[in-house]
Amino acid sequence: MIYEPIDTTIEKLGEATIPSPAGYEYYTKDSAVVLYKAIFDNPEEVNDYHAAKPTFFEQAGPREKIYFDPQWVTAGIVTCGGLSPGINDVVRAVFMELHYRYKVERVLGFKYGYEGLTRKHGHKPILLTHEIVSDIHNDGGSILSSSRGGQDPAEIVDFLIENGIKILFTIGGDGTLKGTRAIHDEIKKRGKKISVIGIPKTIDNDINMIQKTFGFSTAFSKALEAIKCAHVEATGAPNGIGMVKLMGRHSGFITVNAALASKEVNFVLIPEQDFDLEGEGAFLPILKQRILKRKHALIIVAEGAGQKFFENNDMTDASGNKKLGDIGVFLKAKINEYFRKENIAINLKYIDPSYMIRSVPANAEDSVFCGFLAQNAVHAGMAGKTNMVVGIWNNVFTHVPIDVAVAKRKVLDPKASYLWRAVLSSTGQPNSMIARE
Amino acid sequence: MIYEPIDTTIEKLGEATIPSPAGYEYYTKDSAVVLYKAIFDNPEEVNDYHAAKPTFFEQAGPREKIYFDPQWVTAGIVTCGGLSPGINDVVRAVFMELHYRYKVERVLGFKYGYEGLTRKHGHKPILLTHEIVSDIHNDGGSILSSSRGGQDPAEIVDFLIENGIKILFTIGGDGTLKGTRAIHDEIKKRGKKISVIGIPKTIDNDINMIQKTFGFSTAFSKALEAIKCAHVEATGAPNGIGMVKLMGRHSGFITVNAALASKEVNFVLIPEQDFDLEGEGAFLPILKQRILKRKHALIIVAEGAGQKFFENNDMTDASGNKKLGDIGVFLKAKINEYFRKENIAINLKYIDPSYMIRSVPANAEDSVFCGFLAQNAVHAGMAGKTNMVVGIWNNVFTHVPIDVAVAKRKVLDPKASYLWRAVLSSTGQPNSMIARE
Amino acid sequence: MIYEPIDTTIEKLGEATIPSPAGYEYYTKDSAVVLYKAIFDNPEEVNDYHAAKPTFFEQAGPREKIYFDPQWVTAGIVTCGGLSPGINDVVRAVFMELHYRYKVERVLGFKYGYEGLTRKHGHKPILLTHEIVSDIHNDGGSILSSSRGGQDPAEIVDFLIENGIKILFTIGGDGTLKGTRAIHDEIKKRGKKISVIGIPKTIDNDINMIQKTFGFSTAFSKALEAIKCAHVEATGAPNGIGMVKLMGRHSGFITVNAALASKEVNFVLIPEQDFDLEGEGAFLPILKQRILKRKHALIIVAEGAGQKFFENNDMTDASGNKKLGDIGVFLKAKINEYFRKENIAINLKYIDPSYMIRSVPANAEDSVFCGFLAQNAVHAGMAGKTNMVVGIWNNVFTHVPIDVAVAKRKVLDPKASYLWRAVLSSTGQPNSMIARE
Amino acid sequence: MIYEPIDTTIEKLGEATIPSPAGYEYYTKDSAVVLYKAIFDNPEEVNDYHAAKPTFFEQAGPREKIYFDPQWVTAGIVTCGGLSPGINDVVRAVFMELHYRYKVERVLGFKYGYEGLTRKHGHKPILLTHEIVSDIHNDGGSILSSSRGGQDPAEIVDFLIENGIKILFTIGGDGTLKGTRAIHDEIKKRGKKISVIGIPKTIDNDINMIQKTFGFSTAFSKALEAIKCAHVEATGAPNGIGMVKLMGRHSGFITVNAALASKEVNFVLIPEQDFDLEGEGAFLPILKQRILKRKHALIIVAEGAGQKFFENNDMTDASGNKKLGDIGVFLKAKINEYFRKENIAINLKYIDPSYMIRSVPANAEDSVFCGFLAQNAVHAGMAGKTNMVVGIWNNVFTHVPIDVAVAKRKVLDPKASYLWRAVLSSTGQPNSMIARE
Repeated sequence: MIYEPIDTTIEKLGEATIPSPAGYEYYTKDSAVVLYKAIFDNPEEVNDYHAAKPTFFEQAGPREKIYFDPQWVTAGIVTCGGLSPGINDVVRAVFMELHYRYKVERVLGFKYGYEGLTRKHGHKPILLTHEIVSDIHNDGGSILSSSRGGQDPAEIVDFLIENGIKILFTIGGDGTLKGTRAIHDEIKKRGKKISVIGIPKTIDNDINMIQKTFGFSTAFSKALEAIKCAHVEATGAPNGIGMVKLMGRHSGFITVNAALASKEVNFVLIPEQDFDLEGEGAFLPILKQRILKRKHALIIVAEGAGQKFFENNDMTDASGNKKLGDIGVFLKAKINEYFRKENIAINLKYIDPSYMIRSVPANAEDSVFCGFLAQNAVHAGMAGKTNMVVGIWNNVFTHVPIDVAVAKRKVLDPKASYLWRAVLSSTGQPNSMIARE
Repeated sequence: MIYEPIDTTIEKLGEATIPSPAGYEYYTKDSAVVLYKAIFDNPEEVNDYHAAKPTFFEQAGPREKIYFDPQWVTAGIVTCGGLSPGINDVVRAVFMELHYRYKVERVLGFKYGYEGLTRKHGHKPILLTHEIVSDIHNDGGSILSSSRGGQDPAEIVDFLIENGIKILFTIGGDGTLKGTRAIHDEIKKRGKKISVIGIPKTIDNDINMIQKTFGFSTAFSKALEAIKCAHVEATGAPNGIGMVKLMGRHSGFITVNAALASKEVNFVLIPEQDFDLEGEGAFLPILKQRILKRKHALIIVAEGAGQKFFENNDMTDASGNKKLGDIGVFLKAKINEYFRKENIAINLKYIDPSYMIRSVPANAEDSVFCGFLAQNAVHAGMAGKTNMVVGIWNNVFTHVPIDVAVAKRKVLDPKASYLWRAVLSSTGQPNSMIARE
Repeated sequence: MIYEPIDTTIEKLGEATIPSPAGYEYYTKDSAVVLYKAIFDNPEEVNDYHAAKPTFFEQAGPREKIYFDPQWVTAGIVTCGGLSPGINDVVRAVFMELHYRYKVERVLGFKYGYEGLTRKHGHKPILLTHEIVSDIHNDGGSILSSSRGGQDPAEIVDFLIENGIKILFTIGGDGTLKGTRAIHDEIKKRGKKISVIGIPKTIDNDINMIQKTFGFSTAFSKALEAIKCAHVEATGAPNGIGMVKLMGRHSGFITVNAALASKEVNFVLIPEQDFDLEGEGAFLPILKQRILKRKHALIIVAEGAGQKFFENNDMTDASGNKKLGDIGVFLKAKINEYFRKENIAINLKYIDPSYMIRSVPANAEDSVFCGFLAQNAVHAGMAGKTNMVVGIWNNVFTHVPIDVAVAKRKVLDPKASYLWRAVLSSTGQPNSMIARE
Repeated sequence: MIYEPIDTTIEKLGEATIPSPAGYEYYTKDSAVVLYKAIFDNPEEVNDYHAAKPTFFEQAGPREKIYFDPQWVTAGIVTCGGLSPGINDVVRAVFMELHYRYKVERVLGFKYGYEGLTRKHGHKPILLTHEIVSDIHNDGGSILSSSRGGQDPAEIVDFLIENGIKILFTIGGDGTLKGTRAIHDEIKKRGKKISVIGIPKTIDNDINMIQKTFGFSTAFSKALEAIKCAHVEATGAPNGIGMVKLMGRHSGFITVNAALASKEVNFVLIPEQDFDLEGEGAFLPILKQRILKRKHALIIVAEGAGQKFFENNDMTDASGNKKLGDIGVFLKAKINEYFRKENIAINLKYIDPSYMIRSVPANAEDSVFCGFLAQNAVHAGMAGKTNMVVGIWNNVFTHVPIDVAVAKRKVLDPKASYLWRAVLSSTGQPNSMIARE
């Protein structure tokens, strides 16, 4: 594998010259970096690699000098797209860091996603206070509510200016970040000094060059409950089949981690690994063998798996994401049909727990993680960075240009991933379920 | 209201003459009773009532003299119908009481419901041991698995005789109890001395003359989690509507208790209370008012509610229960359609958590309760009672003839129930949602 | 057993003549009763009993006519004594029922127990609103905070009058109720028309003539977690002994129910059942046998058990309750000492989870139950009842004179209780652990 | 900071020449490494660093060639020291990987820690099977049980040889690893080809050069529950103080992460940060200010904090760890005494939840993590590595020489850690609580 250096330069509004009022005992140097690549096939390769220009990310953290004078700053927060555990933790921590560390007095929460950043929907911004945000981390969802879909960047920038916003924090996924970039471009076009900082919210954990997104830990942990129930149902009836559909439009991270935690799953279907339904070596005949031999089976499927079965579908949702075919409902029908043809009475129980996963409060792991993401987003914004998203790489919080973050989706490579290797071990499913000619 | 005396006499296989080996310090007299009616509109009424023949239930409990000599007893356990929290607690406690208290050495577990009580499905009974049952109460489902639907009573009785069964414990709901009665009738026809004892498993809590069935407490407690998620979803999007379908084919007990525990619910729809969808005073216009006023709404609906909308449906499932129309999916479509017509953009999130509720382990309340039901079932069986089900009334464990238990469903009376009164208080929904002419 | 009729007459401030504004479709008659005794050794006894004057409780519920005109009512709520799950549910429901059903506009929350009902501690009452109480049921503890100990009734009545209180709701246990009675006596002495209504909060479930108190279900359910941990610790080391101390100053209800739910416990020690430590047949030698045979043991002990070992202790706490000797710490030392003498190396792990039990939010069972207790307390207060506490008997909500409720403690009778019988079955511990001469 | 290269060479029993039977699609090269240092103060430093000899760890993972022929291998597993969530996950995964991937037929579980590796305690090893380990990950503790303290390495090696052990997996912390090294040294002295592989179990997460140990995520997550309860208690009484003691003998990782997840904590006391009790700027006066101002306070303290207050204590436990003074009990007394002197009535509630944390099952994060640790331990053992422990660094699983792992404890540096910086932000406690002269 050859690593092309990637441009990870972070855009700035100007020079940071104001001493930080944050009162920390130590600050992160603006020059500090974390290496993109820390693993090598052998020690010699290390030096070769570093002789070439290595890729690194700017480290996140509080800067000794900042760009914005806090007394002039009004900051805004908006939460977009689907719910994810931890949104309120992030909103709370952004407010707390701005308010208590940087003494920013005016932090506005915009309601209902990008809808709330325009005039036309009539949603009023909320002036956030300690009292409002103090306990919100105990609740799932978003106190700001959310919506899908973009709005006209020009209208948004008008609205930002109208509200005196100097730093806008956008909490959202791929679509939201693209929207954030569009807002940034419009700001830049107008020559305004407004920082836009993304905080990557995608329960699927599929953002490029970012090791982990918030909500993911909670999500696969919570998914376990549904899987346990499906296992109980599968073993509770003759020829019982439990099937659970989990989140993961482009990547199987939730599904794979949930399978590894559960240890009961027999089949894991993910977007990154193709499979056929019928024919020798395909999924349904293998499922049949399992049922005949063990009398029950447990399947988990990522929502983005098997999309080839919905080829003519080209609907998109309000966020501009391709509307997926419902692989859970599809498989349920196909499995029932197949076993009917095979004359085997089965009991298929299908669980779609998505809304019961994404709306719970963050677990402790995510809660801590959200705090750091939010604080680092504030540090970045106050330092005058813009058009970037806060990330983490090699366990160090980073600044990632939005261009890099949205360049492609992070996916799991079934040919090289130790995660997928472990799934095959744990489930006993074959390396491939492509039908043989 | 006039109380017709009900025949609550318990059938016996013969006189109980063998001293109980159970070693208890105190036993329940076979004559002991609990009054059916303990509440009166005024104190005078008490005496009037008792001057007439009052109805009472036989008290459950260990008897000093038993009918079966434990050394000749093989007992059997079978679990039928859908899963419910606590089945394994019951199986465990039946075994433990038989084994440790009565010294019954052979307890068979029949697999897959009534299927396992015939030869033709080829399911082998399991010889239960301390080791097998010791930890099963920590898991949901049934270690014996279950199935729906009856089998030929003659075949079953053949199989019972073949396996030397003297007492059969059937764990199931209305359909199962009717099956148990049919088995009893066949046994009686053949003049055999085999006891059949039902343990009422219905998550819906709808068995006649029985105050509470096991799994119900766990069910409405667990349902709360889905309701919380639906509430978060409802408040997390513009005009968000959360809707949860809960168990309750004939009665709204789970739905009502879950609503009272949640305190967030705006609309509760149950089988016992009719409602219309459109027209003045009907559900959808009232929902619209709520959305316009508060921008979000939370609905919970029992699966048996609104069945009038599926009038031509007369399918039945394998247990002989009428197949219900799916009111959740139906309402989801109707609500979306209605608001589309009204030109109001809504965000409806629908959750059907049934399989994630019925397959969890019993909570502590149910776990304790299951133990008593099971022990009392064993006491009854060893005492030679038959054709009965173990119940509870005025907090005392009772013996109830199967005829009484299956005579009708226990339902909630919206015109007189303090539960429904409290729901109206808690939700603020109108007393009636029938369309006015 | 002979039942002496008990005087259960409820004191009233005067005649209820005002039509209730509550808008319920059905009301509870003021004459309605529930029988105290519903179980009998044989059916004949029923008539004999009812020929004599039977004891019954007044039924709780909304009355068609009330005593107080809501527009003149200021109500007050105070929470006293130790924390218990569900206090906030009760506070919330008292407010909601007063506010939405009876249109009472002024409901004051007094802070820090009876301290907040006097001037001298300087705690200001809070004017409760929908917003303040709306979400409090999701949190443990009491938003009003609490304190132990009484205050001068005269000072309290002065303060009530000063604040214009017409109905005072006191949420507390035995000590609190005695305080409530003293307040009532002072009010009466002064000829004031102020109602005082108790809502029985005792996690121990030991209030006389009341079937169940709130928080109890949550408490024994939560106790299970500590017991599971103690079991894991016991089996995790050579000769491991796990011991858990649970709440129960006078009665073993929590301990017994937790043992029955757990099914792993080997020894249950409760206040109602005497035991010796050393000598033939006593606790320690029996524990030794268990350790030698099975290499681990699990003990749960109610805090009020074995108080004879602390005979010279006569301290009392601020609530006037006798200060108990710490039986957990005492047993820990005794067990370690005994095995040291016996030259057996053990690993004793002692868990005292009290603060982790009483401070959690109510479970779903308790949450529903708290709602009904609170609503019925409001109905009683508005109807002009006083010097009473809301209870439940034979599953019907009742009015109980404070005199009756505090006459003695409800305890479990080891000689007659089916609960204790089940504990002996479940643990295998001997009927008696009194040392034989 | 100057990085001295560290010798991370892994010892091998001999050359790995046998093709792996594991059947993986891809293997990890034996030369593959992960860099120790991935962060730099500026990009230039990267090249300077790599010009010098950088430190790297060998990557863990399955090797294409292995050292042991599986058909001759008997493997052993032993679990030592205190309980930690995830032990059973590790035991299960070691067995599964050995059995299903490498076809090792004989895996022995040694009971009760190192006691079970000698003859003299008489504990019999268990022959592990799929059935035995299949569900153990659902339970806390260790199915093998554990014990503290070492045993004579010579006796252990005798016993290993007697049982034909080729690979020994030791699951334990610092003391256990030192014991493992002693066993290795004895094996080497005798010229035997037995591999010893450590799997780092320390709930405190304090092992040198290892990013994370298993059980840690579960531990701080579970600790949150105790902290929530302490917070409820603190706010539930006048001048309420909640205090929780958490695990962490040498390091505050659990305490710090729990504080960050909780967001309610006011004081965090850890071993790495000195503090005084009395005098200007010290802990107690600052606590007093908080109480006077806010009327409640929440303290969490790591068990190893404030050990200077127990200077004359030099007891050690069976594992050779210095016995710590009980800082929780000590502080409880000191706080009560101080406020008594100050004439301020407080309500201090102290919770020590250790046994309720370490004995729970692993959460989903830890469960996945345990699987990888165990599988990589098996790969290392089969490849003939020895005297090493499996670790993780920069998110890559690694091989770490035991010498490196036990060289010192991993601690948090309050002068440079972003974790501690975040704690100060979250609690508002001063940077230092050392008394000023």
